[in-house]
Parts: sequence; structure tokens; C-alpha cells
Amino acid sequence: MSDEPLIDVHTHVVPEDFPPYLGHLIGAPWPGMAPAQACHRHVMISGKVYRTVSHQCWSCRVRLQDMAEQGVAQQVLSPMPELLSPWLEPDDGRVLCRHLNETIASMVAEHPGRFVGLGAVPLQDVAMAIDELDRLLHATGLAGVELPSHVNGRPLGDPQLRPFFEAAAAWGAAIFVHPLRPGDLNRLVGPPALEQVLAFPGEIGLAGASLVTSGLLAALPTLRIALSHGGGTLAMLLPRLRHARGCVPPVGGLLPHDPLDDARRLWVDDLVYDAATLRHLVATFGADRVMTGTDYPFAIMDTDPAAAVEAGAFDAATRRALRGGNARRWLTGAVGPDA
Amino acid sequence: MSDEPLIDVHTHVVPEDFPPYLGHLIGAPWPGMAPAQACHRHVMISGKVYRTVSHQCWSCRVRLQDMAEQGVAQQVLSPMPELLSPWLEPDDGRVLCRHLNETIASMVAEHPGRFVGLGAVPLQDVAMAIDELDRLLHATGLAGVELPSHVNGRPLGDPQLRPFFEAAAAWGAAIFVHPLRPGDLNRLVGPPALEQVLAFPGEIGLAGASLVTSGLLAALPTLRIALSHGGGTLAMLLPRLRHARGCVPPVGGLLPHDPLDDARRLWVDDLVYDAATLRHLVATFGADRVMTGTDYPFAIMDTDPAAAVEAGAFDAATRRALRGGNARRWLTGAVGPDA
Repeated sequence: MSDEPLIDVHTHVVPEDFPPYLGHLIGAPWPGMAPAQACHRHVMISGKVYRTVSHQCWSCRVRLQDMAEQGVAQQVLSPMPELLSPWLEPDDGRVLCRHLNETIASMVAEHPGRFVGLGAVPLQDVAMAIDELDRLLHATGLAGVELPSHVNGRPLGDPQLRPFFEAAAAWGAAIFVHPLRPGDLNRLVGPPALEQVLAFPGEIGLAGASLVTSGLLAALPTLRIALSHGGGTLAMLLPRLRHARGCVPPVGGLLPHDPLDDARRLWVDDLVYDAATLRHLVATFGADRVMTGTDYPFAIMDTDPAAAVEAGAFDAATRRALRGGNARRWLTGAVGPDA
Repeated sequence: MSDEPLIDVHTHVVPEDFPPYLGHLIGAPWPGMAPAQACHRHVMISGKVYRTVSHQCWSCRVRLQDMAEQGVAQQVLSPMPELLSPWLEPDDGRVLCRHLNETIASMVAEHPGRFVGLGAVPLQDVAMAIDELDRLLHATGLAGVELPSHVNGRPLGDPQLRPFFEAAAAWGAAIFVHPLRPGDLNRLVGPPALEQVLAFPGEIGLAGASLVTSGLLAALPTLRIALSHGGGTLAMLLPRLRHARGCVPPVGGLLPHDPLDDARRLWVDDLVYDAATLRHLVATFGADRVMTGTDYPFAIMDTDPAAAVEAGAFDAATRRALRGGNARRWLTGAVGPDA
């Protein structure tokens, strides 16, 4: 019997180029590309190098080579999170999102068995985001979207964003939530790289918590949302929320049923870099909810995702579920443990 | 053989009254008390009820009754964190800190075997905070201090605060760090009570991380710092920090040795409301570093701290260490596993 094909749900794309900015705002933080060392380009935003990225970000050929080395059968492609750019004017955001979506869709079209695509929507305008979701699902051929952990400070659980999630549930879109610009960066002591390392987990953890405390997950049970970075700190927050439900009246009033039941409607990737933490994640969210994710091709990526699953020493069914079964259910909505 | 006496390291005090504000600022957020229902008082700050608290906050008699019910032999007393008030002018802060310190010292003096006291310092002025630390340790008779997780946005690991920690290390002060006004409250969806429930863990987790990434813990190996609320999210952050050290050059350059070794210089309380999470905490920080803490007498307190330890199903030595041995070493600096 062949092994369960490994699906990496957390990989990012940067287009090789961006269209020129055609909007009307002077100084809009519109991305562009500038030359860098061989096989690399600088992502330029507001006249500065945001990040220097390699051709792994846009080249299917290079990605397929890396996938062969890592034993990855399929990558789920999503934009580099900064490119989601919810701070742009909605009309500008839509142009950028379409460019991202078409770039990713063309990679999927080249190798449909090896790549699944998630796009971007201008969530800073909910009605426009719903239109773009319709388009990317039904015309562009993507499986869903990547969302930032907040929209200019507005949490994902905010009632104003609810119509977008209703559309996503109705249309069966897969949603991948990624941390973006955490709110507490001034608490870090060290280089800017600590943002991803130390502030992302809290940012995605609170995003997940807002989906629970807002009642969104309970209200839309067919919604398929995955949190990146293992759901960050959410696993540590849930016991506190359950406890507070029993002893803090406003929290009890907010949560008509056990918040852990809602949290277990989420999927999370396994990007926690530690076997004991991964086991804790599986115990918290369930063996049917954790998926392989690497953050390919960025610096903090997990370069050996198969080994990460093995290190958890799970039973055979859980191991298969983490390698691919759970990702297939998240991406397609298929029912059953081995869909 | 009698059981290991249970020491609750996380209990708060609010004085029954406050002196009038004698500073020169109009509208300074100086606390006061107003009448409330029987056995309760309103803590008033800036003309509003900050929290309605019961006589458990100031009455030794009531606390001793509760301790008997909970099987707690000794409480470590610390101010209600909001009262640390780092936003006050330093001179005003000093007056308030002295009032807190004298209140707590008088409770300890009434029942020296049952209470250990931690005071407050005006950390918004480092030199003044060192003077007050000297006074509270050497004249007022307290064992150490409670510190907020940040000082008006400045992380505890910030080099500007280093002289305070050098003094604390030299004088053998026990330090208890508590979350205060988290930086990412706009990420919450729900009632204000969610601040403590969902935002405190990230706040204290980043405070702990800043002590590691700043090199403070490595530089001052005799420093005795405990993080409340189980260290919050820190246990989830450490594997990411260790991983990033190996693959993100600026992080590797920051951390000359394994950050887990530094983190294990910290103590944490066991206030995580979940046996599996507590076991994960002990595995992360070490069986010699986790202590019993309840958040007495506030709403989210753990009312059965002995049961929380039992639920972890630890070996006999770990169980004793969590009940009291680790707290004694943190409070006194005594060396050895059963000091």
C-alpha cells in the first residue's frame, strides 16, 4: 500500500512581477519588484525592500523540485500575507487581489494535480470581497481564500464581516487565516524578525478566539476555516475561556455552549516546531483537524514536514489524517475520515 | 508524614482605603474607594468603578477562612495589578506604592506564618524604583515585588530597565510578573471581561519572551522571576524561538545559546485551568519551576488549587514541588530541590 500523499497546506506565492499602480492615491503602499542577487527579487513597498524573495515564490519548476526533496505531493498556494494589503483603497485592493489570484490560478493550471490555489479578496470592503470570492471560486478556479488575521484592526469575528463568511459557507470556500501585522509589536525586544517568531502566534490565536466568541463558528457550521501556525496560542486560551464561562457572568452569557466544541470546527496546521506541542494540538483540536503546513519558502519554514508528523508518534490513522486526509476534507468539504 | 503545605503564590490585595491624592495633576488616575453592597467596595479610578471587590481583598480574617477551605497553608500577597499604576507621575506612583507596601506588610505582620508579601515599585522611574525596592525589602519587610508585564509599552526586557533587575538580583528579591493592559485588546470580540481571559496570556507570554531575547535571564542568573498565569503563551513561543535561532540569522545572532535554557530560569504559576496544559507546562519549564497560583480572590480564580495539582497526576516529588517546594525556592532563593 502506498503511503498517504503529503499535502502542505501552508505555502506562499509572490508573483514574479506586479502591474504598475494605476490608482489615484499618492504614496499608496503598492508592491513592486526590483532586481536582486541571482534567482531573487526584492519586494518593494513604499520605496523600501519589504522582503527579498527567491524564485521559489513564483517558479513551478523550482517548487516541484523542492517538493520532491521534501516528499510533498501537493502544495496549497496562498499569497505572501503582506500582499493581502487590507490597508489599500478597496478599488486598488481589488486590482491587486485579481493579480494575485490570476498568478496563483495559472500555477494551478500548469500542474493541477500538484497545486491547489487560495486567493485574496479586498476584505476592507465586504460587498466587494464577496464579489471577488464569487469570481475566484467560480471563474478563476481557486479553492478558497487566504484571510489576514484582522482587517485594519477589526477582528475576523466582528459582525461587520459576517456576510463574507456567510457567502464562503454557502459556496464551500476553504479559508486559510494567516497572521498579519500583530497588535503588540512594541512588546518585543530584538530584531524585526521576532515579529513572525514571537508575535504571530498571539495574533492568530486571538483571531481564532474571535471566531469562537462571536458565535460565527456555531452559526455557520459548514464553514471550513483553517488557522495557520498551529492556531498560534489558541490552544492555550481555550481552557481559560472554558473556565471563565463558568465563573465570569459576562463570559457565561456570551457562550451558550462549550467553546471547545466551536474551536474544534476549525482546522489548524502543524507548524509548531515541536513534537510535544504538536501532540497537545492534536489533543486540543482533534486528530481530524490538524494538517501539515511548512510556511514554504520563507526563512522559518519547516524543511522536513514528513518528519514533523513522524515525531508526533501518532497511530496510523492519525498519521494519515495529518499527512493528507484532513487537508482534503478542509479543501473540498468532503465528509468522512478518509475523504 | 504530613502533606506538603500548599503555597498559593498568586493572590491579590486591595487596601480597604486609599489616601487622598496630594499630587499636582488635575485628573490623575488615582484610586479611591466608594461604598458598595455588604462586604464590598468599589475601586474608583478616574471617576468610574474600575472593579467592585469584596473584603477578601483586605481582611486577613476572611482570607484565613478561605485558605482553610481551600487547603492553602500560605498565601503570597501582591497588589491588584491595576494598582501598580505605572502611568502615574513617578512621585505620585511612589506615594501609591508605599501605601500598597505598608498595607501588605501589615497583613504579613499580623500572620507572618500565613502570608508572604510582595510590594510595588514605581518602575516608570528606574532609579526611584530601585530606592523603593531597597526600602520594601530592607525596611518594610516584604519578600519582593509584583511587576506589570510592561511599563507604559516598554517591555520588561528593555535595556533601560536593566538596572532595576540588577538591584533585584543583588538583593535577592522575588519578582512576580503580572499582565497589565494588553496591547492587542482591539482583537477581542465580546465583553470587557475577555481582556483577562484571552488577552492576558499573550501579554505575559511576550513579557517572558522579552526577558529571554534581551539576554536578561542569562546575564543575571541569580534573578528569581515568576510569571503569573502559567507564563501565558510563552510555552507555545519557545519552540518557535528555538527553531528560528537555527534558520533566521538575526535571531540566531541574538541568541548565543538555547533560549529554552534561559526560559527554564523562570518560575511560572500553574493557573492554566487544564490538566493537559499543566503537564505541558511542567514538561516545558521543568518540574522544579511550576508553583500553585489561584488569582484569589477575583472572579476567574481557581477555587480548588490542590485539585489542580492532583489532576496533573504527577510523581510524588513533582507533586510536592508544585504544592510548595518550588515556591519556597522562588521566595527565598534557598538552593536544592526541597528547600
